[in-house]
Amino acid sequence: MTDPLKTGDTIGILGGGQLGRMLSVAASRLGFKTHIYEPGANPPAGDVAHRVTTAAYDDTAALTAFANSVDVITYEFENIPTSALDLLETLRTIRPGRAALATSQDRLIEKTFLQGLGLLTAPFADITDRASLDRALADIGTPAILKTRTLGYDGKGQSRIMSANDADRAFANMAGAPAILEGFVDFTHEVSVIGARGPDGSVACYDPGENVHKNGILDTTTVPARLSAAQRTDAVLMAARILNALDYVGVMGMELFVTPKGLIVNEIAPRVHNSGHWTQNGCAIDQFEQHIRAVAGWPLGDGSRHSDVVMENLIGDDVLRVPQIAKTSAAIHLYGKADAKPGRKMGHVNRVTGPAR
Amino acid sequence: MTDPLKTGDTIGILGGGQLGRMLSVAASRLGFKTHIYEPGANPPAGDVAHRVTTAAYDDTAALTAFANSVDVITYEFENIPTSALDLLETLRTIRPGRAALATSQDRLIEKTFLQGLGLLTAPFADITDRASLDRALADIGTPAILKTRTLGYDGKGQSRIMSANDADRAFANMAGAPAILEGFVDFTHEVSVIGARGPDGSVACYDPGENVHKNGILDTTTVPARLSAAQRTDAVLMAARILNALDYVGVMGMELFVTPKGLIVNEIAPRVHNSGHWTQNGCAIDQFEQHIRAVAGWPLGDGSRHSDVVMENLIGDDVLRVPQIAKTSAAIHLYGKADAKPGRKMGHVNRVTGPAR
Repeated sequence: MTDPLKTGDTIGILGGGQLGRMLSVAASRLGFKTHIYEPGANPPAGDVAHRVTTAAYDDTAALTAFANSVDVITYEFENIPTSALDLLETLRTIRPGRAALATSQDRLIEKTFLQGLGLLTAPFADITDRASLDRALADIGTPAILKTRTLGYDGKGQSRIMSANDADRAFANMAGAPAILEGFVDFTHEVSVIGARGPDGSVACYDPGENVHKNGILDTTTVPARLSAAQRTDAVLMAARILNALDYVGVMGMELFVTPKGLIVNEIAPRVHNSGHWTQNGCAIDQFEQHIRAVAGWPLGDGSRHSDVVMENLIGDDVLRVPQIAKTSAAIHLYGKADAKPGRKMGHVNRVTGPAR
Repeated sequence: MTDPLKTGDTIGILGGGQLGRMLSVAASRLGFKTHIYEPGANPPAGDVAHRVTTAAYDDTAALTAFANSVDVITYEFENIPTSALDLLETLRTIRPGRAALATSQDRLIEKTFLQGLGLLTAPFADITDRASLDRALADIGTPAILKTRTLGYDGKGQSRIMSANDADRAFANMAGAPAILEGFVDFTHEVSVIGARGPDGSVACYDPGENVHKNGILDTTTVPARLSAAQRTDAVLMAARILNALDYVGVMGMELFVTPKGLIVNEIAPRVHNSGHWTQNGCAIDQFEQHIRAVAGWPLGDGSRHSDVVMENLIGDDVLRVPQIAKTSAAIHLYGKADAKPGRKMGHVNRVTGPAR
């Protein structure tokens, strides 16, 4: 597919969560339909999609029918089974491409890739067995954190190692999964850059936002972030370097630690990102539309910020505060999920705090 | 229905055009599903709705099933057949209510209602036969405009009368439909106020926008409108008076002529309005969400304006300019319509021209 998508064309989205939901809304704004592929019943994105396929990622008939019904394929999460992608890419263009997925699905590959670009990362080591963990701890020191190489997010699949005494428990927690040991980074705060790249190689980045986590889950993102002008430029150039190296098409989230030694890349996500939700109320073109534009082969939109914003996630029972929040000037974004389980992202709130500084 | 709607509840929308489409998107933001009722196939709103019923307005079984599947009913156009409303209101609350529909469906009732509130309108007369047209022309003078009392929009069902010689042709054009003669108003420009009222009686109005029409169809709306501070206050108070008199729930559009003698009400529409599309890129809470909030029994949102905006409609082949517009900083809103027929509203563009003045 090289021609830009036109009114009425369909974008296939793998994954039907809140990111797929907000991508669908953005697609509708540009005149596109969406077709959601999601194993779970009643996905949040289904409320605003032209079509939903409820099927597993190993259902080759469903995958084939899905691909044949759409004009391009994108996704809202990076942990799509490789076998599904192998099939889908024979039928339709997948954006962002396989290089981005292969890199971000595996923490070891990701960090090796980032270092290869000359970017700073936390110290890390490949953990293949119990002995390699001891060697890595001797090298990196404590505190450190042991993580599965794949499938981790929002603090899942991670074990902190405060001293060598924790090594046995942490290694057992991995349950034999390939793992990576990461040294702690002494950072003052975390920021993220939401960057986009079009098929023509054009790049556009949003202003960095400053993230605060609670219980391992993003709690708030505030723009503008506390960064010097030089750091701000650095952050954007780092994102652009990654996007170009991956020949990336779409929106990518990049988390950075701000340290006295410079900006250190924590991780990249090949998709729209929770820390970019503020763009819905801070910019004319938000991250969801920017992603759709790139995937559709349209020119990237104007991502300049018109307002300062604080984004707050509504996790689990936080959603019970919505009736109170609705009385304020905040912009509410709910995902239509029925059960407010602990740790579940139910929605978010964007508070515009003034014109862009 | 008195309790506010909650996450996962369903809003039924009569009409599946672009207004229903953008209402659906706003509903999703607040965690609601929508169910669209539309006689035509493949309605624009269907791309972003949880459910679509394709059935005529005299299909009582379909109407009944629709009403039973939703928690509240609203609409995107005012010309819903009375018989359908009679049935639906026995099953579910309809917001805005019947008083608003009865008033705005009929130009004679509307103008009589507005005069009863002490608001200025164009001079008008009820035309029941050919002789009454002559009497009205003698009274009101020319130029004047003969309009069907019902079912007119975007200049349809209207005949200009420049002199008494035009009376026969104009009367014949009405084809026996009940009509109203309206005198011309000598106005400098037209503005509109998008107002909202909640079930608790709270009222919120957006800043007035200034409208320019082309070939009888809205071409651009610019905010802020050229109005003095006193006119701005007047305009908002007039909208509030109408909303309260109708015990209105939802968003209403009110078009005003600006004249040396004051503000004259042209017409009111009991729904979200084309001249309020600028709110999507000028306010944290746009007119669509404001309508959904009111209909759902939520508190009205903050409709204050953060940016100056020029909204331009894309009519017919205007949509061919989209690839060029996509290269600019404008925000594009397309309706997913396949055929760009002349006079058909295909989308609109919001250009943010700066921070709110």
